[in-house]
Amino acid sequence: MTRRLIVINPNSTERVTQDISVAVEPLRNSNLDIDCQTLAAGPGGILTQRDADLVVGPLIDWAEGEKGNCDAIVVACYSDPGVHSLREMLGVPVFGAAQATLGYVGAMGCKAGVISLRSASVARHNAAAGAAGLTGILAGDRTADVSVADLGDDGAIDKLLRAAHELIDKDGAEVLILGCCGMSRFSRAVASETGIPVLDPSLVAASMAYTAILGRYDTPPRGGRT
Amino acid sequence: MTRRLIVINPNSTERVTQDISVAVEPLRNSNLDIDCQTLAAGPGGILTQRDADLVVGPLIDWAEGEKGNCDAIVVACYSDPGVHSLREMLGVPVFGAAQATLGYVGAMGCKAGVISLRSASVARHNAAAGAAGLTGILAGDRTADVSVADLGDDGAIDKLLRAAHELIDKDGAEVLILGCCGMSRFSRAVASETGIPVLDPSLVAASMAYTAILGRYDTPPRGGRT
Amino acid sequence: MTRRLIVINPNSTERVTQDISVAVEPLRNSNLDIDCQTLAAGPGGILTQRDADLVVGPLIDWAEGEKGNCDAIVVACYSDPGVHSLREMLGVPVFGAAQATLGYVGAMGCKAGVISLRSASVARHNAAAGAAGLTGILAGDRTADVSVADLGDDGAIDKLLRAAHELIDKDGAEVLILGCCGMSRFSRAVASETGIPVLDPSLVAASMAYTAILGRYDTPPRGGRT
Amino acid sequence: MTRRLIVINPNSTERVTQDISVAVEPLRNSNLDIDCQTLAAGPGGILTQRDADLVVGPLIDWAEGEKGNCDAIVVACYSDPGVHSLREMLGVPVFGAAQATLGYVGAMGCKAGVISLRSASVARHNAAAGAAGLTGILAGDRTADVSVADLGDDGAIDKLLRAAHELIDKDGAEVLILGCCGMSRFSRAVASETGIPVLDPSLVAASMAYTAILGRYDTPPRGGRT
Amino acid sequence: MTRRLIVINPNSTERVTQDISVAVEPLRNSNLDIDCQTLAAGPGGILTQRDADLVVGPLIDWAEGEKGNCDAIVVACYSDPGVHSLREMLGVPVFGAAQATLGYVGAMGCKAGVISLRSASVARHNAAAGAAGLTGILAGDRTADVSVADLGDDGAIDKLLRAAHELIDKDGAEVLILGCCGMSRFSRAVASETGIPVLDPSLVAASMAYTAILGRYDTPPRGGRT
Amino acid sequence: MTRRLIVINPNSTERVTQDISVAVEPLRNSNLDIDCQTLAAGPGGILTQRDADLVVGPLIDWAEGEKGNCDAIVVACYSDPGVHSLREMLGVPVFGAAQATLGYVGAMGCKAGVISLRSASVARHNAAAGAAGLTGILAGDRTADVSVADLGDDGAIDKLLRAAHELIDKDGAEVLILGCCGMSRFSRAVASETGIPVLDPSLVAASMAYTAILGRYDTPPRGGRT
Repeated sequence: MTRRLIVINPNSTERVTQDISVAVEPLRNSNLDIDCQTLAAGPGGILTQRDADLVVGPLIDWAEGEKGNCDAIVVACYSDPGVHSLREMLGVPVFGAAQATLGYVGAMGCKAGVISLRSASVARHNAAAGAAGLTGILAGDRTADVSVADLGDDGAIDKLLRAAHELIDKDGAEVLILGCCGMSRFSRAVASETGIPVLDPSLVAASMAYTAILGRYDTPPRGGRT
Repeated sequence: MTRRLIVINPNSTERVTQDISVAVEPLRNSNLDIDCQTLAAGPGGILTQRDADLVVGPLIDWAEGEKGNCDAIVVACYSDPGVHSLREMLGVPVFGAAQATLGYVGAMGCKAGVISLRSASVARHNAAAGAAGLTGILAGDRTADVSVADLGDDGAIDKLLRAAHELIDKDGAEVLILGCCGMSRFSRAVASETGIPVLDPSLVAASMAYTAILGRYDTPPRGGRT
Repeated sequence: MTRRLIVINPNSTERVTQDISVAVEPLRNSNLDIDCQTLAAGPGGILTQRDADLVVGPLIDWAEGEKGNCDAIVVACYSDPGVHSLREMLGVPVFGAAQATLGYVGAMGCKAGVISLRSASVARHNAAAGAAGLTGILAGDRTADVSVADLGDDGAIDKLLRAAHELIDKDGAEVLILGCCGMSRFSRAVASETGIPVLDPSLVAASMAYTAILGRYDTPPRGGRT
Repeated sequence: MTRRLIVINPNSTERVTQDISVAVEPLRNSNLDIDCQTLAAGPGGILTQRDADLVVGPLIDWAEGEKGNCDAIVVACYSDPGVHSLREMLGVPVFGAAQATLGYVGAMGCKAGVISLRSASVARHNAAAGAAGLTGILAGDRTADVSVADLGDDGAIDKLLRAAHELIDKDGAEVLILGCCGMSRFSRAVASETGIPVLDPSLVAASMAYTAILGRYDTPPRGGRT
Repeated sequence: MTRRLIVINPNSTERVTQDISVAVEPLRNSNLDIDCQTLAAGPGGILTQRDADLVVGPLIDWAEGEKGNCDAIVVACYSDPGVHSLREMLGVPVFGAAQATLGYVGAMGCKAGVISLRSASVARHNAAAGAAGLTGILAGDRTADVSVADLGDDGAIDKLLRAAHELIDKDGAEVLILGCCGMSRFSRAVASETGIPVLDPSLVAASMAYTAILGRYDTPPRGGRT
Repeated sequence: MTRRLIVINPNSTERVTQDISVAVEPLRNSNLDIDCQTLAAGPGGILTQRDADLVVGPLIDWAEGEKGNCDAIVVACYSDPGVHSLREMLGVPVFGAAQATLGYVGAMGCKAGVISLRSASVARHNAAAGAAGLTGILAGDRTADVSVADLGDDGAIDKLLRAAHELIDKDGAEVLILGCCGMSRFSRAVASETGIPVLDPSLVAASMAYTAILGRYDTPPRGGRT
């Protein structure tokens, strides 16, 4: 039986969705259909808290339409917008790019450095790690100071590398996380320049969602202690 | 000069807004006008993550209308919906009921027990404490298993007290936090029955907002490290 | 191109290897060959620290023979024996059952309860979580008080369930982890009785190893800060 | 009814008490009398652990004289001398400058940088944060390398600013805390130069004490778990 | 050369000093003279924060008299009164009973349960552990609900054992700490009844002070980062 | 009665054993015989995880031969190989160099900087601190980039000092730990150059083992919670 995983890009930039689709390509197999969709109602990029908060409404609307239509969902944005709400409304597993990748680093037994778009993201990322009890696996979080639009320009690689090297040299990062799903296209270049693994959150989250499908690890009902 | 603090109740239940207004009453003085408003577009109560997420849009719309019109804002809901977004869009201080109260407990040098509406809230509260780096001040979080509607019924006090006593006896709580702004009316009764302080998040958050007005502690721009 | 993942059961009990093979079966596909092997030189079960320590030598010898012969390795034992040494000696990704599962729980945004064989395992598990910076995701760890041999007996389910219910009711566990790869056969029964996901460490670790193969996330060289 | 809050400066330097009185001035209103007193028996400044320890005796003696005479007390010194003892002996709320300010930062959802007088204070501040479970909200603590006497000299501002900029640039501080109540007079200048809020511990602690008066949050009896 | 270690009992109860002297007896050897003294100016027992704070003055006075007269000092009280001040004023090593014992448990790789006199001590002990960064080694802290005077009565053993068994059974304590130096005489009985080690803080702290003498580990000057 | 403590150097380099014997010399007295042995079957130095893992087998064999023959054992290697296994198989106290020294720093109320041989050791050290719940006492861990063989060369002191000064100046270390027992011979020089205590793990661990002999603190049986 073929299972269906939807990877939703909550921003409306098609190029990012295409990059995500390339990133998860290796995971596709005869039993797993991965459908990468663009949230048409989303903003061009999710840079601010407001972007992250306001996109949840459209995401929920979108998810209503996919109810009963998929076996798991990945929200492919490093701000994990709407992940808890989608878990609550759907029985199927839901994974967010950031939470999934931080957990994966824990599984590797490493400390991670996160490359962020803007310095404003750093506090948001740290809060998300704290919320998930994963602060202990963060070596550092540094900004490349680029916009989502800049990521379409090949020159962005130099800014990403500068942040990468500081994370490795000053913060002791053993692996790197691309702190925006739109950075996907630079993962090989950063890995090759730094010599350490560069985790692509879209692929990692999609893989974990696939695991949940295979293991029937549906979203647990909240509230174990009654 | 009179300063203006708005306390917004993000659910649409007027009774809750009235209770909040009573709770913050002592803080009003000749220099401080506290305006307690009900978010008409909000849900009847904020019980689920979806409630908390979807109310942010209406909150932001509401805040646009108050721009330049107030000196600080308190979101009087223990799920702190939209707090980060409001901070981002407004220059003025913004405080959320939960974060403010947890910080206040830290200032008291105590460990707190939180009385929650539903067991589903417990994980959300713990995540919020982790996000703020305040996990260390929580003694426990236990559910009274009541709805927002139940809070209008005087019989709810017994359920709150059962949770309160377990927090004190089993978890070592030194102060109690009412984990829903609609529980405000029971604060005196719970304090008197348990003999320890029972913090009312609306009052605590409003006081902290007032402090920020006095000290000109505007919301800091995100991203100190550039 | 077909990739090859070896799952090594470091104890010599064939039945456990067969159960592991059943557990990872859903992950097999036309591009991924999963070879579950039994470490003939291992002990019957890994219950003590001595068992966990002494099996590393045979594991390393075994891994020497597989060098260049596989794309990733999973050590399917909740004590993660030899994982760091194998990472050091091999370029390919190596995942251990415990570390992988704890990280996966972090990715789910949950708190986990671990069902252990013996009370002696609890301290070892807590130390492992601390070493990986993952203490924050543990709700509790309780012993079922069974031996590896007992796990062959269907009556063991009652003991596992007793631990499971205490983890849920007293510790607030939202998902359960089977703290021994030999408990795999009970995962469906425990999930169905408790109504929450029961993670099978063999499947979770194998999935993460597969992700690493797909993403080319080789083991990072130790020592980022020079 | 007018309530009475006493802010006690535990060092004997009148200039510091005057600065504190200016700092808390905005909080005064028709219902709140704030009486800033100098502890005549205190040392000229509290720089060492010995200073902090030996001042507790005179503070307790002083507090005996104020028993029944006030509604709350603030110890306006960033070493929080005697705070726990005063809480124990008095029914009324007692707040210390450091603990209050750290909690306030948690309420703001920020990470704070502390500007200390001397490097010897740093370890003491970190220990105090750890004792209160507030380590998670500290971004850093750096010394301006000034004495209490230096603070009377306008040239001290440059040293404070140097520490401030390092806290922001290297440690990621989002708000700053003046780690000595005698630094109060520089708060506006540091805020204006750095562009981020600079918390004045005297004002913050006094505001929190006022909240406790309003909410009747008396000091809880120690020992919830019996 | 004979070295001289002074163990100061900061309460004035001679019986406690005698018990401490018996506890440290095994450490005495031809090169080490251990002088157990009673602080005549101390209170009968140190039960409250006020007791702990007010005894620092007399302790400092006493220490002035011993300056140049000893090679190390142990403050034999589980509230560690004055330890930081004595470190500051003396070049020689100074160890406190609580901090030393918590560190020793960390060295054993265990989690400890603390038996406290009164429930009021529990919060103080937790704060002390947090201040030293040692929260992670505490399994629990439970009160035996006895006074220092009660400790002279053999019947106290039952109360200590009740706390001990709860620490083991409910909190997972692997070793026990006597949370008052006056409990010393019961250490063998509690160890024999529970079957796990019962640490005597006086002996542990004295041994660590001896280590510091041998290794010339004088109190470090505060303020490494300048 | 003379007690017998064995300090086992798990590497086969005799020079290191001799240095260790010199380091623990001050602890020897008429009641304590300290026997420093070299593990003939060990590697020349323990630099890698593989070294640390593979030496456990020979260590266990060696310990079998010493059963009933000693009152306590110290494993004098900063990777603490086999410590948990030896604890499990022997009733007597067993201390490892790293765990003991980290606990000792906690007892001193300080933050420590660790000087490591190679950058590959840093992650291993951090994991060990996390496993023991002692992360909170680490200021930093920096590599001197030397081999065990280099330690025989007096020129190594410069590399150690460079790491030492960075730990003090950048990480705020108040005491230093020699992160390899073979660095023992440089302890005085580093202490004298930096002006802060330099802890020798062999001496610290041996002293703690002696304490355990005196207090009869045998290794606790694992598994308090049944």
